[in-house]
Amino acid sequence: MAPLPPGSTIGILGGGQLGRMLALAAARLGFDVAILTPEEDAPAARVAAHTIVADYADEAALAELARLASVVTYEFENVPAAAVSRLGELGCQVAPGARALAVAQDRVQEKSFLNSVGVATVAFAAAEDAESARAAVAKIGAPALMKTRREGYDGKGQRWVEHAADAARIFQELGERPVILEAPAAFVRELSVIAARSRSGETAVYPLAENHHENGILRRSLAPARASAALADQAERIAVQILTRLDYVGVVGVELFELEDGQLLVNEIAPRVHNTGHWTQDGCEVDQFEQHIRAVAGWPLGPTHATAEVEMMNLLGPEAHGWARLAAEPETRIHLYGKREAKPGRKMGHVNRIRPLPGRR
Amino acid sequence: MAPLPPGSTIGILGGGQLGRMLALAAARLGFDVAILTPEEDAPAARVAAHTIVADYADEAALAELARLASVVTYEFENVPAAAVSRLGELGCQVAPGARALAVAQDRVQEKSFLNSVGVATVAFAAAEDAESARAAVAKIGAPALMKTRREGYDGKGQRWVEHAADAARIFQELGERPVILEAPAAFVRELSVIAARSRSGETAVYPLAENHHENGILRRSLAPARASAALADQAERIAVQILTRLDYVGVVGVELFELEDGQLLVNEIAPRVHNTGHWTQDGCEVDQFEQHIRAVAGWPLGPTHATAEVEMMNLLGPEAHGWARLAAEPETRIHLYGKREAKPGRKMGHVNRIRPLPGRR
Repeated sequence: MAPLPPGSTIGILGGGQLGRMLALAAARLGFDVAILTPEEDAPAARVAAHTIVADYADEAALAELARLASVVTYEFENVPAAAVSRLGELGCQVAPGARALAVAQDRVQEKSFLNSVGVATVAFAAAEDAESARAAVAKIGAPALMKTRREGYDGKGQRWVEHAADAARIFQELGERPVILEAPAAFVRELSVIAARSRSGETAVYPLAENHHENGILRRSLAPARASAALADQAERIAVQILTRLDYVGVVGVELFELEDGQLLVNEIAPRVHNTGHWTQDGCEVDQFEQHIRAVAGWPLGPTHATAEVEMMNLLGPEAHGWARLAAEPETRIHLYGKREAKPGRKMGHVNRIRPLPGRR
Repeated sequence: MAPLPPGSTIGILGGGQLGRMLALAAARLGFDVAILTPEEDAPAARVAAHTIVADYADEAALAELARLASVVTYEFENVPAAAVSRLGELGCQVAPGARALAVAQDRVQEKSFLNSVGVATVAFAAAEDAESARAAVAKIGAPALMKTRREGYDGKGQRWVEHAADAARIFQELGERPVILEAPAAFVRELSVIAARSRSGETAVYPLAENHHENGILRRSLAPARASAALADQAERIAVQILTRLDYVGVVGVELFELEDGQLLVNEIAPRVHNTGHWTQDGCEVDQFEQHIRAVAGWPLGPTHATAEVEMMNLLGPEAHGWARLAAEPETRIHLYGKREAKPGRKMGHVNRIRPLPGRR
């Protein structure tokens, strides 16, 4: 694909905050954006040239999106595979592609892919009924984490199984859907690496972020994370391996567990811009949103080195009401998503608190 | 005015690139934007939640804008005064206010105001007919620059008068409109200072930019400009004096001439974000666009120190076709405006080439 000229329209499936920040980045580069979202008055729609409010399976909506957009991307991994293939039939390239999406949508496929390309994960086993769930726990050992194979985010759709005897009950409580059983990871830190691959196969990797979750939701990220050169190299090799083996185009978020001996395990791949990459907005010259737009538009990638040290903190629910106090902090950069209702736990915005890089203070 | 909460709508008169970049900054802070522009498919409209396409004098359009927006600002200084006062009657605050606009719209009022508050300009005289134009040149001395008192930008609406005898002819050629005659400034550099004042009277001043024009159009800016502390102080005092005396709210661009002896003369005040402030997008933590939105929304101002050295270069007309080459330069940040037609001389975008600040390389 020839690089997409400014003035072209980029389609985005999904109208939330990630779509909104992608749309803002696309606009800076001179692109128009078309959003397809089932939600009325979506955050991304309010900064986009075109909005189609419809279900992702809506044939007419997909045809309209394909008519408007030269390439289509998405802000969440649970895009229906049928929508992606329909857009392809309509002559519209979707990036990241179907293979990346399939791998990211199914936790068993994801871990199987990772192991098959030499990337370590926790031990895991698949189950599709109460009996195989019990067997899986017996195999992995208890406690084990039971997750639905598909969907679920921010800690939803997962439960700890303390004893093999509980497996059947928890399988039922998760809705009797196909599950994965995962061994616990004895990690010392949760890290993530955000990386990108262009249409020409060029890759670019941002410095590691160190992440802290509460109740399954990301609370804050510190970046660049304190890390040895060996650890940074290991993360970069993992990211490049994933990008290359999936023939990936766009930004990927890779969640990592750091073990005591310094080994990294991959917890999860997000085939999109990622909450733990928001620090790049104020800590890098080209942030993850512009990088993703560059990649899907067939442009060369931008630099990924850090220009500042950043503490990213999510504003959850009513925390966003603290905007006036935050606006008065000189080191604090504010990013709000325009969501109308500050429901508890809802991601309403984030702040990046910046300070000079060590050695530059 | 209490600080405007995120989720509120900010109105912008004008749909060009400045309105577009203001809209992007407003969105980052969680605001919705409503654009009023006479132009169909305007650059700013494509990133705004609401667009009203109508003349600035259109009563119904102004009423609609006032209904949507809690505060209104503008991206160009030739906003009809009647529109601003009508919005005020409709209960909608306009910032910067009527006084700043009146001063900036009339070159004679502008220079008279500056001199009255102790800010130096070139010598000038007003004229309203051929006879007084001749007299004005005789008073100021030839050559003198004849400009229409109102309107005109990027070198339009102005001509040099080499001999007093030419004054009448040039007055006719400029359309027999009220004019100002200005003595030439023996300047060594053109500089500008971008500054802001909040609703609470707080001021913030960015470092000086050094500007280079070609054919009356800004070609490039270098910032922070090499400047002694005394020169930087002088610029800051001028900016703060202008902001304070006009009871100003928002960002102002002040064009300066540096004379050989180090004195600064003010050439022009722009009551809005300014082309010579585009470097702040990639050289500061809070750029002029966010700063303006903060000010008009009644928020506290953000920091204005430079984090990088920037060379801003405008992309005029077909130069914007060089985007692919520019995108491959690692030090180059690209800003394109989404204008459909690259007419010669038209501002299509700009790039900020960044390097570490001196002493940090």
